[in-house]
Amino acid sequence: MRSIVPDYLAELMQECSDVTGGAPADYIPELARVDRALFGIALTTADGRTYTSGDADTLFTIQSISKAFVYAMAIRDRGLPEVLERIDVEPSGEAFNELSLERNSKRPLNPMINAGALTAHSLVGAPNDPPERWVELILEGLSEFAGRELDVDQRVFASEMQHAHRNLAIAHMLRSYDMLTADPEAVVGGYTRQCAVRVTTRDLSVMAATLANGGTNPITGRQVVTPEVVQQTLSVMLTCGMYDSAGDWITTVGIPAKSGVGGGILGALPGQFGVATFSPPLDEHGNSVRGVAAFERLSHEMGMHLMTVPPLTRSVIRRHRRIALRSGTPAYLYELQGPLRFSSVEQAIRLVEESPPQEHTVVVDLQNMTSIDATARRMLLELLRRIGLDGHEVWLIDGETVVAGAAPSGVRLADDVMQVAG
Amino acid sequence: MRSIVPDYLAELMQECSDVTGGAPADYIPELARVDRALFGIALTTADGRTYTSGDADTLFTIQSISKAFVYAMAIRDRGLPEVLERIDVEPSGEAFNELSLERNSKRPLNPMINAGALTAHSLVGAPNDPPERWVELILEGLSEFAGRELDVDQRVFASEMQHAHRNLAIAHMLRSYDMLTADPEAVVGGYTRQCAVRVTTRDLSVMAATLANGGTNPITGRQVVTPEVVQQTLSVMLTCGMYDSAGDWITTVGIPAKSGVGGGILGALPGQFGVATFSPPLDEHGNSVRGVAAFERLSHEMGMHLMTVPPLTRSVIRRHRRIALRSGTPAYLYELQGPLRFSSVEQAIRLVEESPPQEHTVVVDLQNMTSIDATARRMLLELLRRIGLDGHEVWLIDGETVVAGAAPSGVRLADDVMQVAG
Amino acid sequence: MRSIVPDYLAELMQECSDVTGGAPADYIPELARVDRALFGIALTTADGRTYTSGDADTLFTIQSISKAFVYAMAIRDRGLPEVLERIDVEPSGEAFNELSLERNSKRPLNPMINAGALTAHSLVGAPNDPPERWVELILEGLSEFAGRELDVDQRVFASEMQHAHRNLAIAHMLRSYDMLTADPEAVVGGYTRQCAVRVTTRDLSVMAATLANGGTNPITGRQVVTPEVVQQTLSVMLTCGMYDSAGDWITTVGIPAKSGVGGGILGALPGQFGVATFSPPLDEHGNSVRGVAAFERLSHEMGMHLMTVPPLTRSVIRRHRRIALRSGTPAYLYELQGPLRFSSVEQAIRLVEESPPQEHTVVVDLQNMTSIDATARRMLLELLRRIGLDGHEVWLIDGETVVAGAAPSGVRLADDVMQVAG
Amino acid sequence: MRSIVPDYLAELMQECSDVTGGAPADYIPELARVDRALFGIALTTADGRTYTSGDADTLFTIQSISKAFVYAMAIRDRGLPEVLERIDVEPSGEAFNELSLERNSKRPLNPMINAGALTAHSLVGAPNDPPERWVELILEGLSEFAGRELDVDQRVFASEMQHAHRNLAIAHMLRSYDMLTADPEAVVGGYTRQCAVRVTTRDLSVMAATLANGGTNPITGRQVVTPEVVQQTLSVMLTCGMYDSAGDWITTVGIPAKSGVGGGILGALPGQFGVATFSPPLDEHGNSVRGVAAFERLSHEMGMHLMTVPPLTRSVIRRHRRIALRSGTPAYLYELQGPLRFSSVEQAIRLVEESPPQEHTVVVDLQNMTSIDATARRMLLELLRRIGLDGHEVWLIDGETVVAGAAPSGVRLADDVMQVAG
Repeated sequence: MRSIVPDYLAELMQECSDVTGGAPADYIPELARVDRALFGIALTTADGRTYTSGDADTLFTIQSISKAFVYAMAIRDRGLPEVLERIDVEPSGEAFNELSLERNSKRPLNPMINAGALTAHSLVGAPNDPPERWVELILEGLSEFAGRELDVDQRVFASEMQHAHRNLAIAHMLRSYDMLTADPEAVVGGYTRQCAVRVTTRDLSVMAATLANGGTNPITGRQVVTPEVVQQTLSVMLTCGMYDSAGDWITTVGIPAKSGVGGGILGALPGQFGVATFSPPLDEHGNSVRGVAAFERLSHEMGMHLMTVPPLTRSVIRRHRRIALRSGTPAYLYELQGPLRFSSVEQAIRLVEESPPQEHTVVVDLQNMTSIDATARRMLLELLRRIGLDGHEVWLIDGETVVAGAAPSGVRLADDVMQVAG
Repeated sequence: MRSIVPDYLAELMQECSDVTGGAPADYIPELARVDRALFGIALTTADGRTYTSGDADTLFTIQSISKAFVYAMAIRDRGLPEVLERIDVEPSGEAFNELSLERNSKRPLNPMINAGALTAHSLVGAPNDPPERWVELILEGLSEFAGRELDVDQRVFASEMQHAHRNLAIAHMLRSYDMLTADPEAVVGGYTRQCAVRVTTRDLSVMAATLANGGTNPITGRQVVTPEVVQQTLSVMLTCGMYDSAGDWITTVGIPAKSGVGGGILGALPGQFGVATFSPPLDEHGNSVRGVAAFERLSHEMGMHLMTVPPLTRSVIRRHRRIALRSGTPAYLYELQGPLRFSSVEQAIRLVEESPPQEHTVVVDLQNMTSIDATARRMLLELLRRIGLDGHEVWLIDGETVVAGAAPSGVRLADDVMQVAG
Repeated sequence: MRSIVPDYLAELMQECSDVTGGAPADYIPELARVDRALFGIALTTADGRTYTSGDADTLFTIQSISKAFVYAMAIRDRGLPEVLERIDVEPSGEAFNELSLERNSKRPLNPMINAGALTAHSLVGAPNDPPERWVELILEGLSEFAGRELDVDQRVFASEMQHAHRNLAIAHMLRSYDMLTADPEAVVGGYTRQCAVRVTTRDLSVMAATLANGGTNPITGRQVVTPEVVQQTLSVMLTCGMYDSAGDWITTVGIPAKSGVGGGILGALPGQFGVATFSPPLDEHGNSVRGVAAFERLSHEMGMHLMTVPPLTRSVIRRHRRIALRSGTPAYLYELQGPLRFSSVEQAIRLVEESPPQEHTVVVDLQNMTSIDATARRMLLELLRRIGLDGHEVWLIDGETVVAGAAPSGVRLADDVMQVAG
Repeated sequence: MRSIVPDYLAELMQECSDVTGGAPADYIPELARVDRALFGIALTTADGRTYTSGDADTLFTIQSISKAFVYAMAIRDRGLPEVLERIDVEPSGEAFNELSLERNSKRPLNPMINAGALTAHSLVGAPNDPPERWVELILEGLSEFAGRELDVDQRVFASEMQHAHRNLAIAHMLRSYDMLTADPEAVVGGYTRQCAVRVTTRDLSVMAATLANGGTNPITGRQVVTPEVVQQTLSVMLTCGMYDSAGDWITTVGIPAKSGVGGGILGALPGQFGVATFSPPLDEHGNSVRGVAAFERLSHEMGMHLMTVPPLTRSVIRRHRRIALRSGTPAYLYELQGPLRFSSVEQAIRLVEESPPQEHTVVVDLQNMTSIDATARRMLLELLRRIGLDGHEVWLIDGETVVAGAAPSGVRLADDVMQVAG
């Protein structure tokens, strides 16, 4: 059978091939030299399968995309409170290389503008780590997100250092406000290395998938950051990732993303997948023109938009009916299905409340449950407890013991409804 | 059995009861007079069940919360392109009563600041409708969102008209830029009526649930706006709903919401539920202090945050195994479960690709599917088609004919695996 | 003899006649209709002689030029402290119709932008005067500055009221901050009348000359405002009079001035003269194109620039020498000449200190003095006193008794050196 | 005789001694260490006499006061057009260490904020001069303004270099916009040296007097810059010299001035004198608290304000009368007095026009003239020419041959009216 997803990606690229315009970043000779016809796309699922199309294995520099991951590392190493003291999370509505400091606190407005990214760079590792250590840790961290060892493009690095006056200006300004405590030149040097890390579109899709998978690289299985760090990082990407058009991106694409002047864009859909594109020509905001077009199509065609209301949700209660136990004793069976979260467990609770079981014995079957979150688990346990309090004998069928371990006393376990019922 | 959800809401209110501080809006005498101890919470599920706690049936004025719904009505009546020409979607980082017009186009930055809300007010209905008609249509529309007939608090309206200089300033300024084409005084009068519409916390939760349900009021069953309008509205609420702290709200609460100086806040979690709080004391941004605290707890405890990666997602493939048809013919069965979207169908496709069925007959069972979106449906149909192209005979079990209607020729339908299998 | 000054003005107009470009104000139909070829210039000396050239007697509306004079009237009526509480004196760098309020106090930044001018309008007269009274007082005041009874162009007034949304916006905003305490609509109505007052270029030159003459109309001889009010008004005109290019105007022209969109500009050189131009086409700042060119030439050619260092200043001491009184007694004579101010009297003091008179009798002759200010007068009296203290007999020749009235005891007066000397 | 001016300065200091508050600059340890009780004042007349009071000979660092003089040197060396291309002349309304670049051109808004001062520093000398040369030239130039050889305070220089991050930020930013073309670190190093030049209050008063004297040091007699450079420099000082309160300074003090965080302030009154104060405690704008108080008093008491209308100006025509020449021939004599500029010569012209001389011979006596500017000279020559054209014989008495050299043919010269008259 011909594979479906690669066909879809190839089709998407085809649709975007007539999107022209834009120009590769030209402020650095080494970036301006890139082949503007290159175009690649890659998608990695939250469980680690990667699909690609086009030039997905061409190396290019990660540039500003690194900002999202280094922000995550800074939170990992220093904790969210310390990072928030130095970098705010508000969209700036300004170009990426503006100062954009808060009027009073002088904090950079967010970690996706250069001022915030330089600060985040200096917050990786332990407080007294020397600047060389930051670069090491960042290279290690980015490599863990990507699942392979990345390296620095020395020519791009050298070329960018020739044009680093803006970043030096920003770093000295931050230093003057004590937002940076390290040597501004060292920070800019390290940050420029961070931006010159070489990746492929495939790498970016894995990095995005690691975010989509709650911080654990779905290919290596290694946890790079915690889910809490991921939640913070994705939230900031959502409002600040695409430079100075936060609202435009949220309304038209609606997923957390980050772009770089190297031509890459990556986006992550929590719990589902990471996706990345690569095409050098940039629009006036510094975002890849074809990349933006591809993301708009992906969002529209694949219902990726976070604000899309999922259609046709079936009842959480797959079936509920009177059964007889093997012993002949009558019992009442509830089969729950699909993802259990507040709203679905609430439906189950409501059913039990509205039509209380008449039988002494109640069987709750979780075999068709596909997921459950903390709130749903707590509510479900509470439901079992209250059914017990009403005088019923409760049987729980929960093969993977998701709920069973914490089941209220009195709740009996079974492997299958067949065991209890006839 | 004692109901669980009301207990949860009561507990939440209890936890927030020690949150004090703030002061009711005092720029209008009629608002300043409200009892600051009032506190209510309400939650309405996307399928229409409402739970409440505290003063959830006390009437208060909707104020700025109306902005989100009137923006939705403007898009409904004039279409998104026309509305975007007049109102942008960018967060402003400024207080709600600032001008916040785009430097060049002079468009209000978003529909949640007063400049945008006044403009949206004037875009409801047909281009030549008189101002009185806008108010009628808005009252009707808000009533449809709430599922009951709402009315205007005439005393608050009269009191606010005494202090409408800021809004008159904004409206005249918009008129001078031809952003407004109507009489500024009429627009301000109508808008002030819109803000003085009386609601309860319960009403707000139903209004939010209507958004969470894709634009259809889950209680009346009536479609108020389309899913596309809802997507746009929720996107804008996400970045602009909580005044001048977009990033703060997105990182800590992470759901689209809107607050009003009357003390109300509502939030909507797409596909799940709407929730609303009411407590008059406001913080310096104009958001209800206890309301914000309640939403932060709700988000944290109930995993409502949009960037939360759902834990423990079970495989979309509930089971796949060799079976025998009634006729004795061997067949291969795939049982899909849970919500089908790109990422889950992709898993199914991958399984079929990686372990192609050896049997001539293939049975796909959708009975445990809980939802499916457009992309997943298209991919699933393509999967069935390609299995057929590989020479297999394909049976589809799809009781609700979600997919069946468009099934490729050659695919046979069955009601239950029992019908085809033994 | 053919008159020299009119020739000079005609020559200046001739030089500016090739300055083209610009367009008459077009936001108001009535203003757009004016003949763009009109060009007039007028100069009135601080002692009341007027010279004109070109269309100096054509009527047009005063527009923003009125702001300077109404600001002066507000200070006259309410005192500087109260006016400063409501209107600051800082250049705004923004176009005249921007809000430009101070971030904290919400005061308009200066009285030459519309926000400040609307506020100044409402500060004319007594605190409880009704709005109609403001307009009366302003018409009276402008007429006194011009030395003839001015009236309102009712067609321009009516036309501008149709396009007063910007000013209504500003007035309502000021009202919302309690900067205005009157009805915003009444203020805008009155202000629009103020702007529609009809003047000729000749009138404007007299109004400017009244400022140049310390607040006394040099033709009618009537004091309209005090010198203190003039100093404040001219200071503000210097930095804020020419809209958003304060520094440009000060460096290239260097005199206090004010322009209006009706095509007029006036400037005042303290102690010397007022000058005015009229030519309707405006540049992008709203200043008359030919008017600006004429002022630049005037400043350059006539050394009007305030920062021009006056060349070739002769010594304040015209002569000093030994003489003999009629009685034969030897005496020492000091003849002071020119304008006496700190620096010139200081020279005289220095001379007396460095070469103290040997003679018992000292004669100080002020007949060649052309002016004296308060400091110089005080210093001169002190000099006389100290010469007396050193044991000399002092004679003062001061026909106009400028100094004599306050002369220290012991100082004798004479009408002419001939009376005392031989 | 006890000297009057020092008494006045001492009295002024006494009056300001109860002005307390403020704190010495504390961002640099070396500056914070200064004795806050120091207080000095100095005044140097435009012809070179210096008066002092208090600690006028204490050395301190010139700091930002250098900006005005280095701006003058940049214009001297590169010409005004090139300097204007790099540095605008608009007041910024922002603190001295803000970026304050023009939105479009990225030019610093004026030469008195650090961005403009750094740029001006790099424009001294020839285009290819090395940075070391700038510092040499600036030290030479400042010394010429002061009339003695100045040097750098090496401890303050070293201390400031430790805290130069803000200036490094600004310099790198300017470099990134190509406003600076030199190495940012070299510019900041040189600029910091420039600011650490040591001066006394006396020195500053001489530097100011050099400006007041049209660019020629009145003590050394050496022309440091031209009158055109002075006019530009004083104009910019007037609006931008006192940091972020341009309008406040112009209305209350009204003379061009410049302050430095070392505690110095200097001001220059064109044609009259330069004055300087020194007192370390600074207000929140960075201006010396006592210095500002002293300048306000000086301005008020000495009528220094540029907008003060000079009182009691006597007629330019000292006398005009019929006389008889030695030969017995009747003649008409005009004696002109005081400073001749447009407005005074215009009076003379008017008199001649209004009462044309009946006598064939006309005598014009300039012996009482105290100054004359270019326009007045041109007008006077034209007057003489026209009297001649009317058929008169014209005698001119002009001992210093100010006008005589260019007198129209036919005009005869005499040394004294006594020579021609009887």
